[in-house]
Amino acid sequence: MSTAPPNPLLKPVKLALIQLKTGSDKTANLTRASEKVAQAAKAGANIVVLPECFNSPYGCEHFPKYAEALPSLETAASASARSESQSYNHLSALSKEHSIHLIAGSIPELEPATEKLYNTSLIFSPTGALLAKHRKVHLFDIDIPGKITFRESEVLTAGDALTLVETPYGKVGVGICYDVRFPEMAMIAARRGAFAMVYPGAFNMTTGPLHWELLARARAVDNQVWVAMCSPARELEGTGYVAWGESMVVDPNGLVMEKAGPGEETVMVELMPERIAEVRSGIPVGTQRRFDVYTDVSGMANKAV
Amino acid sequence: MSTAPPNPLLKPVKLALIQLKTGSDKTANLTRASEKVAQAAKAGANIVVLPECFNSPYGCEHFPKYAEALPSLETAASASARSESQSYNHLSALSKEHSIHLIAGSIPELEPATEKLYNTSLIFSPTGALLAKHRKVHLFDIDIPGKITFRESEVLTAGDALTLVETPYGKVGVGICYDVRFPEMAMIAARRGAFAMVYPGAFNMTTGPLHWELLARARAVDNQVWVAMCSPARELEGTGYVAWGESMVVDPNGLVMEKAGPGEETVMVELMPERIAEVRSGIPVGTQRRFDVYTDVSGMANKAV
Repeated sequence: MSTAPPNPLLKPVKLALIQLKTGSDKTANLTRASEKVAQAAKAGANIVVLPECFNSPYGCEHFPKYAEALPSLETAASASARSESQSYNHLSALSKEHSIHLIAGSIPELEPATEKLYNTSLIFSPTGALLAKHRKVHLFDIDIPGKITFRESEVLTAGDALTLVETPYGKVGVGICYDVRFPEMAMIAARRGAFAMVYPGAFNMTTGPLHWELLARARAVDNQVWVAMCSPARELEGTGYVAWGESMVVDPNGLVMEKAGPGEETVMVELMPERIAEVRSGIPVGTQRRFDVYTDVSGMANKAV
Repeated sequence: MSTAPPNPLLKPVKLALIQLKTGSDKTANLTRASEKVAQAAKAGANIVVLPECFNSPYGCEHFPKYAEALPSLETAASASARSESQSYNHLSALSKEHSIHLIAGSIPELEPATEKLYNTSLIFSPTGALLAKHRKVHLFDIDIPGKITFRESEVLTAGDALTLVETPYGKVGVGICYDVRFPEMAMIAARRGAFAMVYPGAFNMTTGPLHWELLARARAVDNQVWVAMCSPARELEGTGYVAWGESMVVDPNGLVMEKAGPGEETVMVELMPERIAEVRSGIPVGTQRRFDVYTDVSGMANKAV
């Protein structure tokens, strides 16, 4: 406690969450995403986030139809590789065009060799390179009688790795939607040096009012990091899944910085290194945990991060 | 997932939190606690909770003056033992008189052999027997410039064990105040079968509005247990530490069931086994955690609890 731990946010960064209005036309969804991303980039955004399942409707019946084969980090890094994936190519070009980091929400992925389907977030660098690929680790299987029943596991396979992305601003942890209910993911990312957790997510009209903001604020206050939750816009017409909206950024003290309403909207905030330093200095839980009494889930106990 | 896990709450239980008005006279504090506990017991409470530091003012300068030597679980179990501690004897008799489980907030403890001081919660059975003794594991050392600076570690020693109490209703985890900022304690207690976490605590006029309710709701929703936070009443007169008040019970879905205002007040709720079963069945995170991806801090992974 005699020397201040390093600040996980290396320089100010403008973060934009695109609360996109999505529909059933994949090309139209990608085009609309491009328009909104371009606006955010023009307004100065450095890191832009899209919502969960933004290129397709959200539902087990839709995932196989919309799924695309996506490159792995290894094949994407090969200079001669050219993906066949419409969405991958579109998003890579989009991040390059605007020279932004793009946390491209999530899209249904087909792994051709196994025929398995995943709910996958692609994360691109400002040169259009694939930085990381997060496959949703905790599938959304819930059953609240009379309210909502959903079972992603009927068609999707869960990912088996946590995702921490290196950027020039610092490290960012990425989870997808239901992943936010499991505190270990944010605990591990924050203790390994992340300044923010980003969750593209589509809560619904039952779980949204119950837990969307609570979980964002809980992850923020416990780990003293920024937390961003990026939802599709709420669409009450139609018969499909109704997303909650209310995309938001919570600061490292658990306070909501900016929050969208239900409709299509972009949330943009600037994150400042001095804010996270102030919060961590005031209530220094990061140096007060008792890893002599309980295990450090991050495996980082007593290591400088 | 084919068989429902056992319900951690074995039968309905009435839980009362005494948001006590405390002062500088130890005997008067104990007498006032007795009156309020008697009222709660008469109203049917089975488990009664007192606030942090309820027999003394809260402050490093007061702890040595008010501290008493308290029996260990071993010496307390000895039939011939008779404690010299005024507070211990008072609280043991109080729980026996009303045939209640008493989670007796916390009081300053002196360990004579080492001359160390602790912030200690005594937990009594309906026969007046000492069931558990929790020494605050995470000491309250914070420094928010212009708002509040406090450093318990200047005079107190931290405990080195988590506390899970067996009762006829099921298991209850106990932490004290700042302990609530460390999610591992509730995660471990819940995974080892607790139906509730109980935190006697004295947040203040800075941290109270920021985090008191948020942390209670976070521990509840992540672990799907009831969470009780029991504060001293807010006393704006005087020059001492001003406790936040707003003692509350949060249900296993993260919803505030009952919440006190700032003044002296008793919060009483009945906890029903079917409620925790309903919450855990609807959003079954307890069977969905990915202990193949991250470590289970409770060491209970894949064990029936």
